[in-house]
Amino acid sequence: MSGQPGQMRLHWSPRSPFVRKVMIAAHELGLADRIGTVRTRVSMTEPNDEILADNPIGKIPTLVLADGTVLYDSGVICEYLDALAGGTLFPREGPARWTALRRHALGTGFLDMLILWRYERARAAPHPGVLEGFEGKAAATLAALETEAPALGHDGFTIGHVALGCALGYLDFRFAELGWRDGRPALAAWAEGFAARPSVRAVPVMDD
Amino acid sequence: MSGQPGQMRLHWSPRSPFVRKVMIAAHELGLADRIGTVRTRVSMTEPNDEILADNPIGKIPTLVLADGTVLYDSGVICEYLDALAGGTLFPREGPARWTALRRHALGTGFLDMLILWRYERARAAPHPGVLEGFEGKAAATLAALETEAPALGHDGFTIGHVALGCALGYLDFRFAELGWRDGRPALAAWAEGFAARPSVRAVPVMDD
Repeated sequence: MSGQPGQMRLHWSPRSPFVRKVMIAAHELGLADRIGTVRTRVSMTEPNDEILADNPIGKIPTLVLADGTVLYDSGVICEYLDALAGGTLFPREGPARWTALRRHALGTGFLDMLILWRYERARAAPHPGVLEGFEGKAAATLAALETEAPALGHDGFTIGHVALGCALGYLDFRFAELGWRDGRPALAAWAEGFAARPSVRAVPVMDD
Repeated sequence: MSGQPGQMRLHWSPRSPFVRKVMIAAHELGLADRIGTVRTRVSMTEPNDEILADNPIGKIPTLVLADGTVLYDSGVICEYLDALAGGTLFPREGPARWTALRRHALGTGFLDMLILWRYERARAAPHPGVLEGFEGKAAATLAALETEAPALGHDGFTIGHVALGCALGYLDFRFAELGWRDGRPALAAWAEGFAARPSVRAVPVMDD
């Protein structure tokens, strides 16, 4: 527990890409110092009573405010932090908002899929059709992102950018062998710019 | 394809609880007539090129607006419809918003878990520890909802209510043997009121 009284408390892990999204948003918004982190281990098989008490789904990140209010999932936490700081990660309305939220859903949906893909690969008897399904959807997602990359570079910096950047960072971390940059120069260039932001450099992808 | 020119087009299935959430929201908001539905079959193993062209993650619901703009996931679609109709499913700000969004995340997270649990049960060699993990989290979630049920009945009707009601409907549909109402009278009573709403009755849980 590294929080202080009155601070927010975040169920945290250095390996979760969803926690990383929240911490990058916090750095973008100048709020990182107000968030104390609690190292919380979650797994498909080992119950963790500490997280279940705050979030019965048992997922991280989960944020506990100073008054005891609990917030999840990662998208809700990010929107709360953006409102708290008066930020611009979540455009307030109109097409800019729907584009940012659609990109955020694409990034988080991609991450959900990659995490399930990784579980499947690690099973004693992986299902070949399921593995093939993940491979096809990952290729479709990367193709769509290559098409969208030029627009990403011109649309400011929203929660959609954070989510997509975290998904690409997770690919580098857990699926390096995919070589996702091959044949996708626009997306690779965008990811390079993302990785160079101070908020992103402040929250490196890391193992324990 | 049951849409008309100028209408919105929704990738739809009668069995998806996430599609059901969108359709209940559309009925609440008086927008159901403006949404044409396309029967879209998705699976972990069979690629569906039609949905991948609109949403590379390959998930339903996915909404295509009259101008070709694509929106996903279900939460983003619901918020778009709420804004279009000037509705109150998404409180605009403050604690009411964070409570609604946290409940929405609880309902959708519960559904994600139940769907994975169902896949796991159907495998040739289910992982006992994974099955046990799902069972423990489902029990924790239902206990938390029993505690929250009285507040649910007094907090208006938001996207959080829709998501939680759809999760309980999915329990009845796919996990009837859990007997989730046993020992949870407050939640059972709330679910009864939910099921009686015209918007919910208009979108029954059904198989093909």
